[in-house]
Amino acid sequence: MQAGANLPAVGGYNQAVILDAVRRSPDGVSRVELAERTGLSPQTVSNVTRRLLDEGFIVDAGTVPSGVGKPRTILRLEPQGRFAVGVHLDPTVITLVLLDLASRVVADRTIPTPASGEAPSTIARIAEVVRELIAESAVDAQRVMGVGVAAPGPIDLEAGTVLNPPLLHGWRDVAIRDDLADALDIPVLLEKDVTAAAVAELWAGAGASDDRNTLFLYYGTGLGTGVILRNEVIRGVSGNAGDVAALAVGVTDGHVRRVGISAMPSVLVDAAMAAGVLQHEPGPLGTEEIRALFSQLVQAADGGDPAAVAIMDAAADDIAVGLVQLVNLLDVDRVVFGGPFFGVASGFLLDRVPGRVHDNPLLVVPHEIEFTTSDFGDDVAAVGAAALVLDHAFSPRPEGLLITH
Amino acid sequence: MQAGANLPAVGGYNQAVILDAVRRSPDGVSRVELAERTGLSPQTVSNVTRRLLDEGFIVDAGTVPSGVGKPRTILRLEPQGRFAVGVHLDPTVITLVLLDLASRVVADRTIPTPASGEAPSTIARIAEVVRELIAESAVDAQRVMGVGVAAPGPIDLEAGTVLNPPLLHGWRDVAIRDDLADALDIPVLLEKDVTAAAVAELWAGAGASDDRNTLFLYYGTGLGTGVILRNEVIRGVSGNAGDVAALAVGVTDGHVRRVGISAMPSVLVDAAMAAGVLQHEPGPLGTEEIRALFSQLVQAADGGDPAAVAIMDAAADDIAVGLVQLVNLLDVDRVVFGGPFFGVASGFLLDRVPGRVHDNPLLVVPHEIEFTTSDFGDDVAAVGAAALVLDHAFSPRPEGLLITH
Repeated sequence: MQAGANLPAVGGYNQAVILDAVRRSPDGVSRVELAERTGLSPQTVSNVTRRLLDEGFIVDAGTVPSGVGKPRTILRLEPQGRFAVGVHLDPTVITLVLLDLASRVVADRTIPTPASGEAPSTIARIAEVVRELIAESAVDAQRVMGVGVAAPGPIDLEAGTVLNPPLLHGWRDVAIRDDLADALDIPVLLEKDVTAAAVAELWAGAGASDDRNTLFLYYGTGLGTGVILRNEVIRGVSGNAGDVAALAVGVTDGHVRRVGISAMPSVLVDAAMAAGVLQHEPGPLGTEEIRALFSQLVQAADGGDPAAVAIMDAAADDIAVGLVQLVNLLDVDRVVFGGPFFGVASGFLLDRVPGRVHDNPLLVVPHEIEFTTSDFGDDVAAVGAAALVLDHAFSPRPEGLLITH
Repeated sequence: MQAGANLPAVGGYNQAVILDAVRRSPDGVSRVELAERTGLSPQTVSNVTRRLLDEGFIVDAGTVPSGVGKPRTILRLEPQGRFAVGVHLDPTVITLVLLDLASRVVADRTIPTPASGEAPSTIARIAEVVRELIAESAVDAQRVMGVGVAAPGPIDLEAGTVLNPPLLHGWRDVAIRDDLADALDIPVLLEKDVTAAAVAELWAGAGASDDRNTLFLYYGTGLGTGVILRNEVIRGVSGNAGDVAALAVGVTDGHVRRVGISAMPSVLVDAAMAAGVLQHEPGPLGTEEIRALFSQLVQAADGGDPAAVAIMDAAADDIAVGLVQLVNLLDVDRVVFGGPFFGVASGFLLDRVPGRVHDNPLLVVPHEIEFTTSDFGDDVAAVGAAALVLDHAFSPRPEGLLITH
């Protein structure tokens, strides 16, 4: 059953191409320029832009002189033309954003992720907060096209279910897509969290349409990657691409050390407590405590505490060694860092990881790799989930196209 | 300079779509069926098929009754309509094939790869053998569309050069694409060997247009992978995707063990000599000796020799552990084995690797993985290099397409 994903594409291919061109022109664009950039005829551009104006996607933003001819009308995106909601279901916190057509976060909320076994009530709570978010932001509810949900893998993309994420207890075979669609009565799409982060980059960030191949390194409760190749997000056959938890990066006590464990914030916090860098009562840590303690650890490392530096340095090493293997396999030329735990550690990691990747003798790609940070910070997966809805509705997709002449 | 790659696409998009549909119908196809399958109008199908008949790509293969209407003409691919040459430059041997439109090897040759430092004379020799291959097979030289070259990475795809392959000594910054194009005066394309193997699968093998995501595990002098996602071969930004030599798969003597070393045929042969499984004079081995000794090792393992089994078993383990990490990252549902050293070891490896991948607790994808063997055996990279030329000329590519109405 795909009912939850029943999100119709808006307009035809030409309309998507023109809206995309307007969207990528923050200073506005004239009809003549649109015809030049898209290769469409002036007549087609005229017809399609009239439709886009009528439906509120774009606005007339005044005129500019045009040599001897009559002044040209400048068209701009109407950011409030449509909206989408993004929901990031993280083991610690649920982030909700309302995104406009210009990829701006119009409103956002976070709520703690309830403890295990409460999927149905959590979905009901998400639906409630989605309604509040739309109501409080006073946008036209008719213009909210749908909700995107970013969830930890593994997921069943077809069925729209969260299968059994290792860090999200009690979420086994949960039909979050259809349940949320039923509760809200608007279309819902489901995506794996790291893939949603890649969608955010491709829709509105560093990965947007410049023909680079990008690896998104998502640093959250766990580590994962999103992959963008030739302006397409790689989902894999079942929507579960990007799992690098098992990637081997070294040896500890005669056993393989895996980046999905060795560089995890909670593991680094444990090591810091064992080394006396952090003082904390013994006993299991809540996820909020891990966030706070991880911040303390990074601060201690930034401040030069040798034990803290050693712990964070080893994590930077493991991330670099993991990246070398991934870059060799995928031949990407850009790595974007992001996710809920990256922000606090970005100074430390960006000082070390890029150089260690480039200097690693095992790196074989014959080109530089650019390292950047996501513009979307902690919200990247939620922004990506919302962008998924906009992308689904508005991106030009030539699949199945045939010229019938 | 891209002159060497100056291979024009043949006909337009509609022609490519129709030729592709005919090519994928080994029993032939009527114009009515073509219109149904492609969504093109009967008039367009009629115009395009007339052109394809005139140009010798397809033939009229008789008629079949059609209910009350007049009998339908069946159209079939003309395998001899066009040809392409594939050249696989391997550290041991250079394989050349002449491929027809039906992906059949019409003629093939192998010549030993000369020792280091002889790139210019080797390219001259390749050109000579290409000419002989075409002359001896008595095909119409005008119908040979071009030459594809599969070379070990790293390569510079834009420049058409082989950069500095670790196993191919003396080939540093060699402009093989343009040099061979100059020598032969026909278009030449360059591709990395493992990517060419993936092209072979996609054009004519198990990877052909069935929406599976495929990892090709290339077992040659070294190990590499080709990746097919959503019916596209993944090349990476510089054509060097698929390097898995550095992939960590275990621990030996406190150090990370990498699949690109631990499962290499030459390394297994060394281990077998050290263990007394193989008797051979001490001293460096030529590549042909390694092939022969590797066959003996596999025979000994197939025959139950415990030391031989242990060596090959460890290699199977490392390949399985490497595949788990790759499948997790890419979420593929098919693994195709091939390459010059795979054939002899296929029985041993296919008995062990699939089960060990599925049973590995680190595997996270929620679906089965199919394991198959390439149909093209040792020739897979050469066939892929030739298929690259045909694919380049004939595959329907919607990129840049716009409907201008």
